[in-house]
Amino acid sequence: MKILITGGAGFLGTQLARALLRLGHFRGQPIERLTLADRVAPAHPEVVADARVAADVGDLLQRMPALLAGAQDVVFHLASAVSAECEADFDLGLRSNLDATRALLDGLRQQAMRSGQLPVLFFSSSVAVFGSDPGIPLPAVIRDDTFPTPQSSYGAQKFICEQLIAEYTRKDFLDGRVARLMTVSVRPGRPNGAASSFLSGIIREPLAGLPAVCPVDLDTAVALASPANTVAGILAVAQADREALGGRTAINLPALTVTVRQMLQALEAVAGKETAALVTLSPDPAIARIVGGWPAHFDSPRAAALGLKPDASYRAVIEQYIADNKTTG
Amino acid sequence: MKILITGGAGFLGTQLARALLRLGHFRGQPIERLTLADRVAPAHPEVVADARVAADVGDLLQRMPALLAGAQDVVFHLASAVSAECEADFDLGLRSNLDATRALLDGLRQQAMRSGQLPVLFFSSSVAVFGSDPGIPLPAVIRDDTFPTPQSSYGAQKFICEQLIAEYTRKDFLDGRVARLMTVSVRPGRPNGAASSFLSGIIREPLAGLPAVCPVDLDTAVALASPANTVAGILAVAQADREALGGRTAINLPALTVTVRQMLQALEAVAGKETAALVTLSPDPAIARIVGGWPAHFDSPRAAALGLKPDASYRAVIEQYIADNKTTG
Repeated sequence: MKILITGGAGFLGTQLARALLRLGHFRGQPIERLTLADRVAPAHPEVVADARVAADVGDLLQRMPALLAGAQDVVFHLASAVSAECEADFDLGLRSNLDATRALLDGLRQQAMRSGQLPVLFFSSSVAVFGSDPGIPLPAVIRDDTFPTPQSSYGAQKFICEQLIAEYTRKDFLDGRVARLMTVSVRPGRPNGAASSFLSGIIREPLAGLPAVCPVDLDTAVALASPANTVAGILAVAQADREALGGRTAINLPALTVTVRQMLQALEAVAGKETAALVTLSPDPAIARIVGGWPAHFDSPRAAALGLKPDASYRAVIEQYIADNKTTG
Repeated sequence: MKILITGGAGFLGTQLARALLRLGHFRGQPIERLTLADRVAPAHPEVVADARVAADVGDLLQRMPALLAGAQDVVFHLASAVSAECEADFDLGLRSNLDATRALLDGLRQQAMRSGQLPVLFFSSSVAVFGSDPGIPLPAVIRDDTFPTPQSSYGAQKFICEQLIAEYTRKDFLDGRVARLMTVSVRPGRPNGAASSFLSGIIREPLAGLPAVCPVDLDTAVALASPANTVAGILAVAQADREALGGRTAINLPALTVTVRQMLQALEAVAGKETAALVTLSPDPAIARIVGGWPAHFDSPRAAALGLKPDASYRAVIEQYIADNKTTG
């Protein structure tokens, strides 16, 4: 079993790689080779030290022929230009997110024609496919059959890739599966320019003794998933029998809906009043508008049918973060 | 005002060209030039004789740079590989329907950057975007916010183009408008290989004294629009102010829902028992399954808000066909 993870050196790619290496097998077969393709080399010691891991560093679109030359049984396509990049540079977004995905689809189709075996393709889409079109406002609760009307280049590109993968799957060119990931919290590392950055920062920074700013109203509701729950969702969708997936359209992964107030209450419960007091409220209307436009409430029976559940509580999410980052804390 | 119609020598392209030439102006400006791009030259005498018409014959993707070199104020993008072609030749469909549309979008975007004027782009999508995904069955009534889950390459390509156009419009690269056309009945000409062919044939052939076969159950409901009503819908969507369109997603044009039995009753009422008796019932399970999968019932408030209405009755549709085709009858 040969597996490729695009975006394999990123945070989620690394978490997924570690989970696969620990499992040792996937879809009933031992993992012989795990290729991690990214613009940078993988850095996690557990990944770097593993003899099954091959790193492929470079531009994904340019590397695609070489990546598929060795035939991949399973591909996790996580690589993506992020939303701020796509909004600032339209052509970069189209190239990184649409052209690279189409090159991957055509490469896998050619591989299937040569080998007679359908490769499994997992694609990470995003709740960013949902947005309020001027004519079609978002419903209060997002279901698996809610019509996405993306309001960002990133969301539009993800949604177009969803359609291409459903079509290549319908044509039996490959076995495609798409899951829409929720906002991941708590991400380790440093703050970035994303509007969602504070949804990790208001927990991560205080736990490290650092101040953090909350730019939205405390009653803002958000839909989150922990890193571990996100990786579990990716693995379940990639492993499931086709019939269990309930169709070829994208599956919304489980979401824990919490208000920012509940997040901070959980932080106080876990780490105490002084730690929680490191968070300052400083409303930023631009961020509040973006985050307020994201769907917060989901009804996701297809994910539930795969046995997937939201994180039990936001307190459990924080405790997971602390346990996972003990050595670096 | 310079206008381009892709697919301009086809049936709908010709009807649209004639309507525009008769109007003489569009969006408040006189029409100076009407370019009809197609794989064949326009043939209708009224079109060929008009000094404002320029024909551009060739492969659309190859011709695109030349077509846009002269700057087009309005483009009606009707050209498309049809559904049977797309299903039989996947690469041809991607090239004709997706790559050509993307080349058009990028060309118009470059034109807008040069001129500072947003070109208007009308794109003809199709009810073929709707299909029953194994996991997400079609609702009984299709609304403007129904989630399309295409079950054909043609439908998937149309839906992806809808998304691209919504995104280019959101980014202010062009002023895109998309309408989903209903099955057009009665089309003149000869039967073709399309599953919908009989929906014109069972009227057209008997009116010409020829036998015709109905391959589906008489109680099968279908959603139709006459050629004139379809052209009226295209013009209204292309002419409307952006605010009147109610968002950037595709508008379902009005549909007249009738059963095949009602179609034949209307034929008898217009042309008599003997004419209607030229239609023989000969069930074809393959065609019945395809046609039975098409949505037949629509609730289309956005089209209604533009003043668009379904054809008054199927009897009126037949009478329109007879009037339009008198000279050749």
